[in-house]
Amino acid sequence: MRIDLNADVGESFGAYAIGHDPGLMTSITSANVAAGFHAGDPSVLRSTIRLAKAHGVAVGAHPGFPDLAGFGRRDMKVSPREAEDFVLYQIAAVAGVAAAEGVTLQHVKPHGALFNMAMRDADLASAIARATAAFSPDLMLFGLPDSELLQAGRAERLRVVAEAFADRAYEADGSLVSRSKSGAVIHDVSAVVARAVRMAKDGTVTAIDGTVLKLRPDTICVHSDTPGADDLAARLRAALGDAGVSVRAIGAA
Amino acid sequence: MRIDLNADVGESFGAYAIGHDPGLMTSITSANVAAGFHAGDPSVLRSTIRLAKAHGVAVGAHPGFPDLAGFGRRDMKVSPREAEDFVLYQIAAVAGVAAAEGVTLQHVKPHGALFNMAMRDADLASAIARATAAFSPDLMLFGLPDSELLQAGRAERLRVVAEAFADRAYEADGSLVSRSKSGAVIHDVSAVVARAVRMAKDGTVTAIDGTVLKLRPDTICVHSDTPGADDLAARLRAALGDAGVSVRAIGAA
Amino acid sequence: MRIDLNADVGESFGAYAIGHDPGLMTSITSANVAAGFHAGDPSVLRSTIRLAKAHGVAVGAHPGFPDLAGFGRRDMKVSPREAEDFVLYQIAAVAGVAAAEGVTLQHVKPHGALFNMAMRDADLASAIARATAAFSPDLMLFGLPDSELLQAGRAERLRVVAEAFADRAYEADGSLVSRSKSGAVIHDVSAVVARAVRMAKDGTVTAIDGTVLKLRPDTICVHSDTPGADDLAARLRAALGDAGVSVRAIGAA
Amino acid sequence: MRIDLNADVGESFGAYAIGHDPGLMTSITSANVAAGFHAGDPSVLRSTIRLAKAHGVAVGAHPGFPDLAGFGRRDMKVSPREAEDFVLYQIAAVAGVAAAEGVTLQHVKPHGALFNMAMRDADLASAIARATAAFSPDLMLFGLPDSELLQAGRAERLRVVAEAFADRAYEADGSLVSRSKSGAVIHDVSAVVARAVRMAKDGTVTAIDGTVLKLRPDTICVHSDTPGADDLAARLRAALGDAGVSVRAIGAA
Repeated sequence: MRIDLNADVGESFGAYAIGHDPGLMTSITSANVAAGFHAGDPSVLRSTIRLAKAHGVAVGAHPGFPDLAGFGRRDMKVSPREAEDFVLYQIAAVAGVAAAEGVTLQHVKPHGALFNMAMRDADLASAIARATAAFSPDLMLFGLPDSELLQAGRAERLRVVAEAFADRAYEADGSLVSRSKSGAVIHDVSAVVARAVRMAKDGTVTAIDGTVLKLRPDTICVHSDTPGADDLAARLRAALGDAGVSVRAIGAA
Repeated sequence: MRIDLNADVGESFGAYAIGHDPGLMTSITSANVAAGFHAGDPSVLRSTIRLAKAHGVAVGAHPGFPDLAGFGRRDMKVSPREAEDFVLYQIAAVAGVAAAEGVTLQHVKPHGALFNMAMRDADLASAIARATAAFSPDLMLFGLPDSELLQAGRAERLRVVAEAFADRAYEADGSLVSRSKSGAVIHDVSAVVARAVRMAKDGTVTAIDGTVLKLRPDTICVHSDTPGADDLAARLRAALGDAGVSVRAIGAA
Repeated sequence: MRIDLNADVGESFGAYAIGHDPGLMTSITSANVAAGFHAGDPSVLRSTIRLAKAHGVAVGAHPGFPDLAGFGRRDMKVSPREAEDFVLYQIAAVAGVAAAEGVTLQHVKPHGALFNMAMRDADLASAIARATAAFSPDLMLFGLPDSELLQAGRAERLRVVAEAFADRAYEADGSLVSRSKSGAVIHDVSAVVARAVRMAKDGTVTAIDGTVLKLRPDTICVHSDTPGADDLAARLRAALGDAGVSVRAIGAA
Repeated sequence: MRIDLNADVGESFGAYAIGHDPGLMTSITSANVAAGFHAGDPSVLRSTIRLAKAHGVAVGAHPGFPDLAGFGRRDMKVSPREAEDFVLYQIAAVAGVAAAEGVTLQHVKPHGALFNMAMRDADLASAIARATAAFSPDLMLFGLPDSELLQAGRAERLRVVAEAFADRAYEADGSLVSRSKSGAVIHDVSAVVARAVRMAKDGTVTAIDGTVLKLRPDTICVHSDTPGADDLAARLRAALGDAGVSVRAIGAA
């Protein structure tokens, strides 16, 4: 029994600070580092990689839409060619800065609207997988278990990593309950922790209608924009440890 | 006797086309490829690298100030830390996209105001050299022969590449005549070609006051924003060949 | 019988020149001036307004998505609140610079993907109409005759202006043939001119299936990104004049 | 005896929150509202103007360099023409959004590096004053008492407003002590309050070398990026009131 804990980091920009990076880094095992398109800047990127390295946290690229004003959360209708090229660019930037710090890039996880769209849009998913594989066949690709993205990753012979969200409700079919519905986000910290432990240990989660779903995540996402995200991550890590689950980066031995 | 011919390319952006890339690529031997800060975008970057590869042109990164509106031509007072980080980021992006296309980055040449400032500002020069060396000790650094930039490059144990401008007038001390003075830019194509041949063959150039300067450039820059830059490059290459000068990328065997 | 001729102008950006503004200004009667979000910059905006004023061309704001890299041509899923605020901002910028040049803003025409989405999306259309009315109840709103945008404009008690495209094929229901279909754009200049004259004079156009549609446009759009757009505009204006149609800005007496 | 209290507001951007706007608005009398170039966005701009209106705070435009990554704090070598055009654009945007909210723009105060450079650079100062006057001769221009900016404002027949900084040390010649020197910023709140009261009441301040300077400010700036800026503003306002100084917007009757 092992699990990876991932979170989005490096999203500050210039004079603008956001997130809980120092706190999160003491608990997570994989960091999704912003690349300057939806968030982040070259100095934030570099210091975030240094911080991850100092805490032994694995580094991934977190490419997003070129939409700083919208924090990459607004759907944009880009062509597969555009997506492939800007994802490759962002992977290259994060990987190159990481390499200069002596860190090998572990994975790629798309951000925000790009992530959500790539779960369902086969062409977009394929573009992202191609960009990832073009950069390196050793990169892992993060996404929801039955998503177009992971399917595209497999087609590119990438190692795919199934992700779960302990603070999000699931539909009976394994998809996430839309944020527009009530109950979509679970705010009770104890409940979130209990769900994470059950996901990691038993491979199950109770859907919003009461159905018990099988779910074998390789990694659990801690939303870094939740107030108290760093405390939540610390509690998750402690509870998983107490339950006998080994919390390690997905790429660790 | 050998010489490299370099030019700035990949400066188009989205719907905006600029430059003479396809024409230039048939004559130059080293391409300075924009990285998306002063010019260029991820798709332009990738297709420019493909074009360079198809023509056997060596690829370099051309980092600039984060100033698309000013095309990187406006002095910006950035800290050495900021400069180091955004130069590293830009090198990483170009190098990573090049690697995905099977191309190894040859060199780094700063753009516009960043280039000009780095000729004289030791702290900025050192920041750029550090970023370059941090990315790879095999990268070459382009600059004016007696500049702070090349001195900083040597301090970082990088191979430095002395650059000359065939279409710019020189002062008696070897510096370029300021563009604000009349006669700073030489518009007569035959004169530019003759100067280039003499630089490459004899290692001399006549300064604006008549003094004959010693100048042993490794590479000659063709300004890509001059009207007819592609024709000029073709004439330069032909004339150099006729004069028995081998025109090859600086990093070629 | 009178008609307005409009075109998109002021889309250059920094070192990047695009379009045929000087040529177009001698023929069109209403200019849609970019506001710096999808294209244009403060200096281009101001000089474009001066050019319009010098030629007696009426000035309108041409707000677009905040997507310079995509030239405002990519759908973005923005909230009505965001759209209302960035359209108001762009109208304010163009109107204020125009006022400093002694020119009163005549109209608002959304650009690219924002225009296309606002034809069909009632919430977005309403946001644009509210922003326009909030700035001034005297502004006119340009759009396709039966669009959500013009309906929203009427609801805000704005004067709405029905637009036609002489170089685009129409479906039998009066909508434009999608650019993805063959025959969507009419490239033959004589055919385009003949269609424009017929639209202005007879109020009809032949749809792609042969149906004769009624169409009473107040203004005809000349696509400024077509090669030879300035020549086409000149021929349109001359032909309309020869046919006895008065070509005047929609807001002119 | 009366004084204006001003602060920079509206500097949040998209998902990035910064500053203490709601708290400051209960104490200041003039708000310098960011225009989207160094900080701010169209939605932040509009809601900031609404907030100012709700609190009876006068609204000014706070134009800055086009440098969001540097928060407008980095010197940029722009031409006077560029500066004039982007300042006019920013004034237009703020004024137009304010007008849509029923608020008339009171003043213009340049931001950050643009402000500092305009204190000493006559060409830049003149460009800013021209842009301000071109928009409206009724706008006031804020700056240091003996600055090039206020001189340029007078030359354009604008009403100029002398500004003082209660939390900054002064040199004997009336200039601000450079932030690079120790003692440049006064952190003791009681001392700052006492200085402000003395400035407003007696028109004097003690320079860093002990000299007593005459200083008759029309407005005192509260730095909004100081931690506790809102509390400081509240204490300043209360202390000024207690001392019998009327705290009113500079443009109020």
